[in-house]
Amino acid sequence: MKAIDKSRSSEGRRGPAPVLLVGAGPGDPELLTVKAARAIASARLVLYDHLVSEEVLALLPPQAERIYVGKQSSNHALPQDEIVALMLELARSGRPVLRLKGGDPYVFGRGGEEAEALARAGVPFEVIPGISAAQAAAAGAGIPLTHREHASRLVWITGHLKAGAEDALDLDWPSLARPGQTLAVYMGVASLPVLASRLVAHGLPADTPAAIVERASMPQQRTVAGTLGSLPALAKQQGVKAPALILIGGVVALHGVLQAQGHALAA
Amino acid sequence: MKAIDKSRSSEGRRGPAPVLLVGAGPGDPELLTVKAARAIASARLVLYDHLVSEEVLALLPPQAERIYVGKQSSNHALPQDEIVALMLELARSGRPVLRLKGGDPYVFGRGGEEAEALARAGVPFEVIPGISAAQAAAAGAGIPLTHREHASRLVWITGHLKAGAEDALDLDWPSLARPGQTLAVYMGVASLPVLASRLVAHGLPADTPAAIVERASMPQQRTVAGTLGSLPALAKQQGVKAPALILIGGVVALHGVLQAQGHALAA
Repeated sequence: MKAIDKSRSSEGRRGPAPVLLVGAGPGDPELLTVKAARAIASARLVLYDHLVSEEVLALLPPQAERIYVGKQSSNHALPQDEIVALMLELARSGRPVLRLKGGDPYVFGRGGEEAEALARAGVPFEVIPGISAAQAAAAGAGIPLTHREHASRLVWITGHLKAGAEDALDLDWPSLARPGQTLAVYMGVASLPVLASRLVAHGLPADTPAAIVERASMPQQRTVAGTLGSLPALAKQQGVKAPALILIGGVVALHGVLQAQGHALAA
Repeated sequence: MKAIDKSRSSEGRRGPAPVLLVGAGPGDPELLTVKAARAIASARLVLYDHLVSEEVLALLPPQAERIYVGKQSSNHALPQDEIVALMLELARSGRPVLRLKGGDPYVFGRGGEEAEALARAGVPFEVIPGISAAQAAAAGAGIPLTHREHASRLVWITGHLKAGAEDALDLDWPSLARPGQTLAVYMGVASLPVLASRLVAHGLPADTPAAIVERASMPQQRTVAGTLGSLPALAKQQGVKAPALILIGGVVALHGVLQAQGHALAA
């Protein structure tokens, strides 16, 4: 990480520079919003996370200063409070900051905490939403998130296990195991076996359709589909790795027919 | 609606033309994805819904043929099966179709049903996701959808009442009334009083923060914030109208501090 260039500071004269909290979407730069793409193309100083794709970073101007603040499960390049402290320091030094986060900043991105810190510190900011992984997985794999016949409710959770302890996946199982809804599970590769067995133990049939979509929206996108009962073994067998999104529910049964016909069309 | 121009047909020679199912996002054209914006700019034939904004339609080429297929609660310009039939007929006549839907096609947009019909009819298609209203409301009103201290789960439902019958809001109340989650309610303006009273009856405290965001992302965006107990009266008093999105949960308490500092920054 580079030292902060105080020579460019306007501290004490005009107050802190603004921070743009921008959703970098699922990876495909074509799925950035128009607004985010413009902000990226004109950025001068960027703090970015692990989940921001190389393809999106390639849209930054060559002269933009890039600071990787990481976040790869428990292996953070910088702890969250240090990310916030750095962001505040840079803004206060008078340098506008582009804070680039995978997906949507306000969906499992800790963007809420970052916005709160900015607001409480009096730093002006704006949040630009982004396509979240569940949306990209749905569009790419042919799995609608809602459907009148299968799901009138959509539930997004994280399957993040705390410190490797299986029991740390502390979720409200009865409400997750109810029928007629779609579950979208972020960061759930490691916890998939626990997740599946608990859902079945709480009454969701083992033959409920389930799929895992690896690297949604990217050329390497891959979908492994099965049932709640079979998916953990299938995912392991096929070596599915993070980032991947799990979808569970009747809508997943549409994957076969939608995938067969739907595909990226030549522009 | 114009008659289908058979002279441009290539039916029987190369199979049906493709359909692009495109998310038009929440209204602000800046929140279209780059891919959607490009598809819109080059469209020749568009089927669009009520929730697609004028500002987005303005990006269509002047010579593009526009067919409004509506959908304003129960007042449909065309019933869903006729929309599908028309879309299939146009594609089979050899004319590529841009099917433009508000928000994200696979989130409460019946895009899943349309994709299914296309797939079963052998029509090639692609789905381009869009920023959904909950994401636009969150970014615009300063209400993160998830937050470590307030919500580890995000639940998306519709508050659409069937045929005006209050009892037709048939939801699984106990799981909706649990703490530690954010509820995002689509199409809930009319059902807000029923929704709030049922949630309170099922144990969600009446002082749970709640807000309604009208026309999220648009210049006319307006947020009315209160509690589950106070919001129905506040929304009525202030004349909140559809399209509006309701957010319920601890995260809504952040609206005050985030709204005070966060705002659209001059580019």
